Amino acid sequence: MKRLVGAAALLLALAPTPLFAASAAQGDGSLTRLFFVLAVILLAGKFSGELFERIGQPAVLGELIAGVFLGASVLGIIPTAADDSLTEIIHVFAEIGVVVLLFEVGLETDLKQLFRVGRGAMSVATVGVVLPMVGGILFWMSPLARPEFSLTDATTTGIFIGATLTATSVGITARVLQDLGVMHSIEARLIIGAAVIDDVLGLVLLGLVSTLIAGSTLTVFAVGRSLGIAVGFLVLAISLGLLIAPKVFSVIDRMRVRGVLLVAAFAFLLFMAALASVAGSAPIIGAFAAGIVLSGTNQFDTIEKRIKPVADVFTPVFFLSIGAALDVRLLNPFNPANAPVLFIGLGLFVIAVLGKFAAGWAVPWRKFNRSAVGIGMVPRGEVGLIFANIGLMNGVLTPELFGAILIMVIGTTLVAPPLLKWSFGRGGITGPLEARPVPLSEIRDSESYPSSGEP
Amino acid sequence: MKRLVGAAALLLALAPTPLFAASAAQGDGSLTRLFFVLAVILLAGKFSGELFERIGQPAVLGELIAGVFLGASVLGIIPTAADDSLTEIIHVFAEIGVVVLLFEVGLETDLKQLFRVGRGAMSVATVGVVLPMVGGILFWMSPLARPEFSLTDATTTGIFIGATLTATSVGITARVLQDLGVMHSIEARLIIGAAVIDDVLGLVLLGLVSTLIAGSTLTVFAVGRSLGIAVGFLVLAISLGLLIAPKVFSVIDRMRVRGVLLVAAFAFLLFMAALASVAGSAPIIGAFAAGIVLSGTNQFDTIEKRIKPVADVFTPVFFLSIGAALDVRLLNPFNPANAPVLFIGLGLFVIAVLGKFAAGWAVPWRKFNRSAVGIGMVPRGEVGLIFANIGLMNGVLTPELFGAILIMVIGTTLVAPPLLKWSFGRGGITGPLEARPVPLSEIRDSESYPSSGEP
Repeated sequence: MKRLVGAAALLLALAPTPLFAASAAQGDGSLTRLFFVLAVILLAGKFSGELFERIGQPAVLGELIAGVFLGASVLGIIPTAADDSLTEIIHVFAEIGVVVLLFEVGLETDLKQLFRVGRGAMSVATVGVVLPMVGGILFWMSPLARPEFSLTDATTTGIFIGATLTATSVGITARVLQDLGVMHSIEARLIIGAAVIDDVLGLVLLGLVSTLIAGSTLTVFAVGRSLGIAVGFLVLAISLGLLIAPKVFSVIDRMRVRGVLLVAAFAFLLFMAALASVAGSAPIIGAFAAGIVLSGTNQFDTIEKRIKPVADVFTPVFFLSIGAALDVRLLNPFNPANAPVLFIGLGLFVIAVLGKFAAGWAVPWRKFNRSAVGIGMVPRGEVGLIFANIGLMNGVLTPELFGAILIMVIGTTLVAPPLLKWSFGRGGITGPLEARPVPLSEIRDSESYPSSGEP
Repeated sequence: MKRLVGAAALLLALAPTPLFAASAAQGDGSLTRLFFVLAVILLAGKFSGELFERIGQPAVLGELIAGVFLGASVLGIIPTAADDSLTEIIHVFAEIGVVVLLFEVGLETDLKQLFRVGRGAMSVATVGVVLPMVGGILFWMSPLARPEFSLTDATTTGIFIGATLTATSVGITARVLQDLGVMHSIEARLIIGAAVIDDVLGLVLLGLVSTLIAGSTLTVFAVGRSLGIAVGFLVLAISLGLLIAPKVFSVIDRMRVRGVLLVAAFAFLLFMAALASVAGSAPIIGAFAAGIVLSGTNQFDTIEKRIKPVADVFTPVFFLSIGAALDVRLLNPFNPANAPVLFIGLGLFVIAVLGKFAAGWAVPWRKFNRSAVGIGMVPRGEVGLIFANIGLMNGVLTPELFGAILIMVIGTTLVAPPLLKWSFGRGGITGPLEARPVPLSEIRDSESYPSSGEP
């Protein structure tokens, strides 16, 4: 063993040779770094996830916290600087990660069962958008606000802050529901359904806020048309897809080349994500629709099984990237400059949590675990980050207000997974057929994903 | 159906709205385009591969030709321009594709069996490097050469051309061997072994040629050190890995988080690829070593099965990118400006094919399908492209000579798959235990990869 270590040291000492220069001359220096960074992201994410699962927390929380440590403000391994060529590539991996995740959620979604909770999901989504929005506006118009953090008038900034408080990160919640193995419960369906509606509403809001920032006036017609396109895409894509996909995929299934079924499914999900984006919706909505469409094919089982490894190599990049966005220095309470930022961030955090939590009580006509549904809507994740970023770019937010919003976004994202697990453990889940809640422990193992040992 | 099409047309007409502008404002326009481009690359590759397999050709040939059609000189869908932000991302996907492919080849490689053909592989590699190298130098010093295509003296250019003629693309050949299902034959082992040695020799040559271009003089010590590092990395990585990996992976196998085994294997292969690059070897050599190391673990079966879908979404990007490098306008014989380029390209092509083909006869002490081994060494693929690119960047080659080398590289890459299939069909394969060749038809089905229908 000692001899081997000695040889390794020798090899490392010899490394900077003409040959190393030659490989750098090939322009592959950034590729080498990318491979290292990706390997570290994946290993840190999985090992941290394992640690959190062992101490009884959802694995995704471990991935988020691993991201905080690998981020620019601590170890600086995950690139975030705009002038770093790796930043864009890591961003692409993260984006593919979240669309593949939503595709998986779509695959696991039974459209009929989703329709059965449709009215409930709509109520949860509406309450969960209105309460935080109103709360945010009122907060910024109250004496608690810090006008020096805003670059426009209080109304515009208030509406903008309200908008950042609305959208639920379906990605985070879906991962926790997957981790807990409760994806088929009534609660999970309500949360996923409401989160998707939330995303549609959030994108409409984003369009309106952008119009407002540009100084244009809003018309009822513009609002209606935006909403029509977003909803129209979802309805049209799913109904057309359900009509055509089973025939197309049964032809593809008869092909002989290796992996054609998986590759076709993966290409279809990318295509739908891009199409959704072009139609003015979000890529994740398109990917979710693609999953629902393919859940209606006969090749569903094979697709679901084969997409898992692909999801496994992309999705951790997404969760660690979100964690990496947090500048931990902002959280230092001993730095007096941080006090107002921390205070605003905490205020927004409280509004964000209470507003969504209350939405769990928006459905009066059924029995289910209400606090779990409310908590499931809490994480803001990537959608909140996108909103905050636009505000910073368009000169609505100062870096301080941006920091406060980040504290709210990351805070909601970090508290939701453990709270959701606790809530499901305490209140139980409602199965699709059962009338009354059952304890989590009876359900979870049957749904979990074996890490190995398949035939 | 008509109504649905009408609704789709309406949706598309409505698409360029404030909301679309909002999604563009998020800076995700390039992401949308990437999703479209990736989907087209994957679908075109698989469907073209299927078509070629139906007409009795290897699927990889279909992917290469699909790449030619999607390339800049025909449809322009695969980005190649240096100022296009997608070019780098597609390049990264292609690079991950080829390292995952070589990892798979490593997984399927039995180290003991490889050692048994070691002496033979060394002979094949040496002859296959020396003959094309000498042929290339002689060609460029003969009256057939076009000195106006060269920017340095004839000797330097000749050595450079000789170097571009040496390296075998183990990626292309490995895919054909996979497609034919003959990976476990003596011939396949000889080819893979020789191709890996070729790559090591090729990188040493690249270092030497770069030194030459820089105007420095070569010393025996520098050559020896370069070779020592390249070989040392491979030996050290594999022996250390075989010692440690089984213990580490049996610990990882006991972890509970989803996909931890696959993710650890994928991270390990990226890490080894990066390490190989830092040590002055090529990323694919590191990935191949990673595969060999993990083939010695108890988790081998699960890893092999789970990495397949990951390879399926990355490797087509690699093969289509190679095809996309061909400018088909160079092949137009009616353009008089093309005549000298075509002539030089054809000359280099003949030297490239004959030199490697002859290498099949370099092993006198065994019975096997010699022409298959020779043909298996013919494709130059990505390694040839890297060499040619360095020549262009360092001002050794004019664009015309670069074009001629490209014709040689793509030509050898396109003829090898059908010739290899023909040769295995005619001359049969030699099994690891059998003494005499068996027809291909008896072997291939048992090795093929089921596209669906697993439990």
